[in-house]
Amino acid sequence: MLYFNSDYMEGMHPEILKRLSGINMDKNTGYGGDAICESAKEKIRQACACPEAEIYFLAGGTQANAVVIKSMLAPYEGVVSADTGHINAHEAGAVEAAGHKVLALPEHDGKLDAGEVENYLKRFYEDESHTHMVKPGMVYISHPTEYGTLYTRKELEALKDVCTRYRMPLYLDGARLGYGLAAKGTDVTLPLIAQVCDVFYIGGTKVGAMFGEAVVFTRHLTEGFFTVMKQCGAVLAKGWFLGVSFDQLFSDGLYTKCGANAIETAERLKAGLREKGYSFYVDSPTNQQFIILENEKMNELKKNVSFNFWQALDDDHTVVRLATSWATKMEEVEKLLAFF
Amino acid sequence: MLYFNSDYMEGMHPEILKRLSGINMDKNTGYGGDAICESAKEKIRQACACPEAEIYFLAGGTQANAVVIKSMLAPYEGVVSADTGHINAHEAGAVEAAGHKVLALPEHDGKLDAGEVENYLKRFYEDESHTHMVKPGMVYISHPTEYGTLYTRKELEALKDVCTRYRMPLYLDGARLGYGLAAKGTDVTLPLIAQVCDVFYIGGTKVGAMFGEAVVFTRHLTEGFFTVMKQCGAVLAKGWFLGVSFDQLFSDGLYTKCGANAIETAERLKAGLREKGYSFYVDSPTNQQFIILENEKMNELKKNVSFNFWQALDDDHTVVRLATSWATKMEEVEKLLAFF
Amino acid sequence: MLYFNSDYMEGMHPEILKRLSGINMDKNTGYGGDAICESAKEKIRQACACPEAEIYFLAGGTQANAVVIKSMLAPYEGVVSADTGHINAHEAGAVEAAGHKVLALPEHDGKLDAGEVENYLKRFYEDESHTHMVKPGMVYISHPTEYGTLYTRKELEALKDVCTRYRMPLYLDGARLGYGLAAKGTDVTLPLIAQVCDVFYIGGTKVGAMFGEAVVFTRHLTEGFFTVMKQCGAVLAKGWFLGVSFDQLFSDGLYTKCGANAIETAERLKAGLREKGYSFYVDSPTNQQFIILENEKMNELKKNVSFNFWQALDDDHTVVRLATSWATKMEEVEKLLAFF
Amino acid sequence: MLYFNSDYMEGMHPEILKRLSGINMDKNTGYGGDAICESAKEKIRQACACPEAEIYFLAGGTQANAVVIKSMLAPYEGVVSADTGHINAHEAGAVEAAGHKVLALPEHDGKLDAGEVENYLKRFYEDESHTHMVKPGMVYISHPTEYGTLYTRKELEALKDVCTRYRMPLYLDGARLGYGLAAKGTDVTLPLIAQVCDVFYIGGTKVGAMFGEAVVFTRHLTEGFFTVMKQCGAVLAKGWFLGVSFDQLFSDGLYTKCGANAIETAERLKAGLREKGYSFYVDSPTNQQFIILENEKMNELKKNVSFNFWQALDDDHTVVRLATSWATKMEEVEKLLAFF
Repeated sequence: MLYFNSDYMEGMHPEILKRLSGINMDKNTGYGGDAICESAKEKIRQACACPEAEIYFLAGGTQANAVVIKSMLAPYEGVVSADTGHINAHEAGAVEAAGHKVLALPEHDGKLDAGEVENYLKRFYEDESHTHMVKPGMVYISHPTEYGTLYTRKELEALKDVCTRYRMPLYLDGARLGYGLAAKGTDVTLPLIAQVCDVFYIGGTKVGAMFGEAVVFTRHLTEGFFTVMKQCGAVLAKGWFLGVSFDQLFSDGLYTKCGANAIETAERLKAGLREKGYSFYVDSPTNQQFIILENEKMNELKKNVSFNFWQALDDDHTVVRLATSWATKMEEVEKLLAFF
Repeated sequence: MLYFNSDYMEGMHPEILKRLSGINMDKNTGYGGDAICESAKEKIRQACACPEAEIYFLAGGTQANAVVIKSMLAPYEGVVSADTGHINAHEAGAVEAAGHKVLALPEHDGKLDAGEVENYLKRFYEDESHTHMVKPGMVYISHPTEYGTLYTRKELEALKDVCTRYRMPLYLDGARLGYGLAAKGTDVTLPLIAQVCDVFYIGGTKVGAMFGEAVVFTRHLTEGFFTVMKQCGAVLAKGWFLGVSFDQLFSDGLYTKCGANAIETAERLKAGLREKGYSFYVDSPTNQQFIILENEKMNELKKNVSFNFWQALDDDHTVVRLATSWATKMEEVEKLLAFF
Repeated sequence: MLYFNSDYMEGMHPEILKRLSGINMDKNTGYGGDAICESAKEKIRQACACPEAEIYFLAGGTQANAVVIKSMLAPYEGVVSADTGHINAHEAGAVEAAGHKVLALPEHDGKLDAGEVENYLKRFYEDESHTHMVKPGMVYISHPTEYGTLYTRKELEALKDVCTRYRMPLYLDGARLGYGLAAKGTDVTLPLIAQVCDVFYIGGTKVGAMFGEAVVFTRHLTEGFFTVMKQCGAVLAKGWFLGVSFDQLFSDGLYTKCGANAIETAERLKAGLREKGYSFYVDSPTNQQFIILENEKMNELKKNVSFNFWQALDDDHTVVRLATSWATKMEEVEKLLAFF
Repeated sequence: MLYFNSDYMEGMHPEILKRLSGINMDKNTGYGGDAICESAKEKIRQACACPEAEIYFLAGGTQANAVVIKSMLAPYEGVVSADTGHINAHEAGAVEAAGHKVLALPEHDGKLDAGEVENYLKRFYEDESHTHMVKPGMVYISHPTEYGTLYTRKELEALKDVCTRYRMPLYLDGARLGYGLAAKGTDVTLPLIAQVCDVFYIGGTKVGAMFGEAVVFTRHLTEGFFTVMKQCGAVLAKGWFLGVSFDQLFSDGLYTKCGANAIETAERLKAGLREKGYSFYVDSPTNQQFIILENEKMNELKKNVSFNFWQALDDDHTVVRLATSWATKMEEVEKLLAFF
């Protein structure tokens, strides 16, 4: 059986396991107050060209989103998101559990449109009864999006511009950021993200880390963040595990290599499927590919390949997701293509 | 100046004020545990033909919605609503503040469509990752809706049917229920509502009461409701004020009379405006009328009439709301028409 | 039967009813945006000698506490209170429902001791793991307390001093403030309260108002307070009802008169019971009197007098509460004394 | 430098690392739906002699407590705990953040007394205004407690008895359960815990696991638990990491061995310090030892030993904590003793 379900099926990049094995019996300070975390943070600051960044390591993406959003919103504020945003659709109401509404706007290939956000804000403040409504308090985007698509530099700057004018922080969910940075033709870099965002996270769980996400506040933005983390059950006793992953990922370009492998294998997958005449639901330049299959073909494929059902397109066709990752081997892609 | 802004501008129906004045210095048990509340509850049970109903009086609509929804949902559940539902749009995130997501579906003249609700539920449970998503735990409708429109008996029964099959309670927000019951041609009665709903509230604030809403659980559905009320600051020390309003409203048909006055004046308003060639944004059979005005006309009207901006239709036209009520005099409507 | 259960058994002071009756059919702007509320606020600002005060009217005490505390705390903060504080004991967890811990310290006749508060804060910040703990974010006191006792000017200033040094707002719950201000020998006035507190509320429900509490921020302290009110179901559609009560109460010294009546009748009650040899659980200078009765006597009294059980003292004695109010007549007190 | 700060300084037991290294590049189903987790659960069911147990793996103790308590309480309920309970003192208000009050009772060497719990419940229900108060909805205990002490079988059965009579679930926080089970003279076993508790967790983070806690519901007690986990950010994408730890810990008695090592080294530590005339703040039979030191001695010790400040005893003496663990070597204890 071939597995293309997701990018978090394997453990961790072998270099991280090697480092971990070497220091497993060392004694470390708890709760992330150790030297390895400190070293990892410094490397991330450099990679982001953002020396004043405040960095926290959390265990997963839903957790990171919940804690960041809770820490940044006033009780009467909500968070603007594309309706397909992970926080709106697949986090079981974590934002609402913290007392805040997700203010969903229509998505465009998974993305928010800066003009539409501005129009929404304009109409909100024009509405005479807006004090009876949830105030838009921040903007959430994901990059890559849930459809694997990417913002351009121009699009990010336009969003930043709207946020600045309406005094709202811009938050970027980078669960698969490594794959976005490695995509062909993107003009979005880590330093750019650190410039346009107030806060973002660099995903580790899906990009070679043991697990964990690095939340980056690009300047001092929030008080008591550690205590909010603790309150949300997001402080790991052995926080240095997270430090180990990020310290390795940001040494010798490992994060970049992890990203590149997923993109190369995804590009081969795309080309191979295109050659065979398959069509795509979305044109994704990253590691998630959304393919339209006849149901008969889909059921036949299931015998040899494990993948993700995405959504029914019509009575006869289904959109399925195939994901490559830092760990995908080109030979697996070739084997996969042979089944199409 | 003429005022057609809303149905809660005056105090209370004079009969209620008279009753209140007569007993103002009596000593009553606190927190709604008094004989007047008990009497009012019994009258409501009879009006609903629902002898086993459990009834609580709350001070306002947002409060009633928040307390009822909080008391009925498990932590992982949300409430299905039309996207124009009051809980989704104009209650400042009260449902989310209690930790729950509003699961908004498209509205049709302010109403949920039973078929669309069913389709949504079907797709929800078919989705392999639905345990990562907020579970639909109840259905919220308003009757009349925020657009003044009404469900038919058949539509309510269809919604009830979907709810029953998916084991979800159906909750009806009756902030303006008196106006819905009095509308021309409706086949929806209080006993029908008590049959199809698990819980609903009979609006007092907007229908002649001093203030207050009567929440009616049509059978024993929730433990600890009084304590949830207290926790939400929804227990009035002098709860008997609420009892006085509802005891009067459900004596000698006063609630019906209040409804009828608003409908008669609204019907005259509609006929008069139609005669003059004005068109309506929605065809509302109740006390709220949504009229399309040229902006020039609207600005002229503002000099003599106070009304509510609803939404911009295009660059030259605006939708405005004119509301009649239990207190509107026919002569006020005639004066109003003279300004068109 | 004589009723000494509480200070919220009657409706409202007759002068308020008279005013209300006169304007019942007037048309008022909703949600407290009316001229009567504005007038009432201005009178309160004058009574407090605090021209920059921001004032909001809410319907009840639990609601006022919940909304104020929610609006002022960060997610990682809690509120310091005496363990007998109403928010800790009798508000059904309203503070916790908004996500915050009540940090309870030992009470002394219902009061917090400034030295103990300071010691607690000192130890908190000395604790190396205090970022794993709820940060004390504000101090809550009630005046009169739940035992009817009063802070002195010196005690309030000492609390203020601690709060200032630790940058925490001081919040005073004045549910029965009118009775505290009217007590014999107190050196605490409204202007003093406005000086030492960041925010407090002037209780109306228990001091002659129809119902309602006036929350007074002594300077601009919070954004979005109205929206937090709305979210908590604490915005009354007919907000002008609250304005009417407070506009009357702060005209011609009515609030003072209401307070004085309760104190005079309570003083007579105390003197009468002392003469007859009864003893008191707490020495209360306000309208709530806590009397120790032999259980046999208590049961006999129940035949003619309605009062509140407070707590069992030992197997043979019980503490009961007798409350006078703005509405108590001296002849009722004399009749009551005759039963002892 | 010698480190006796805590029991979570090292990584994981070498056998777990070995297993992890062997399967690091295998492809596993996400979110704990893999075969390793299934195997671990079955082994735990056997160790607990509880075949119907429902088991979930979470990443840490605060997270486990928050999710379990949220999933089991109604909105109007709180959780009874000793005032020193971890949920009351050191989890940053996680229970309150989910909307629930911690109902703190006095601790006795860190333990709740069944008689006192019963007395509290009796008084609660006797109080006429108990519907205005937070209803006690479950009982939380820790075993070992935060002071390292243990309940006896008799004490646990007495608590269970009270809980049964008042229909409240009993929840045991076993963050250091392995050390409790291995203590000399205890009559508490895993099967006993599964009998007396409705739900408990077996701590892994502090007892040799990479990290993670196994929440054991001893029968089907809650709906939607996985979704509550997801909402709380407590679903690990690579959930099989948690399975690996517990599958190893419950193979060949590894959990027992981990416990035994900590107890043996702690016993040597105790004996050694007693011989040297030191006294203990609490008589702890487990791996945490609370020692009273003169401040001068404490400061001298700091040069060579890293340990935890616990609390100031008086001006001249301090209580410090020394913790052994699954990883402590006897030679480290001997070295430590040499510094006293």
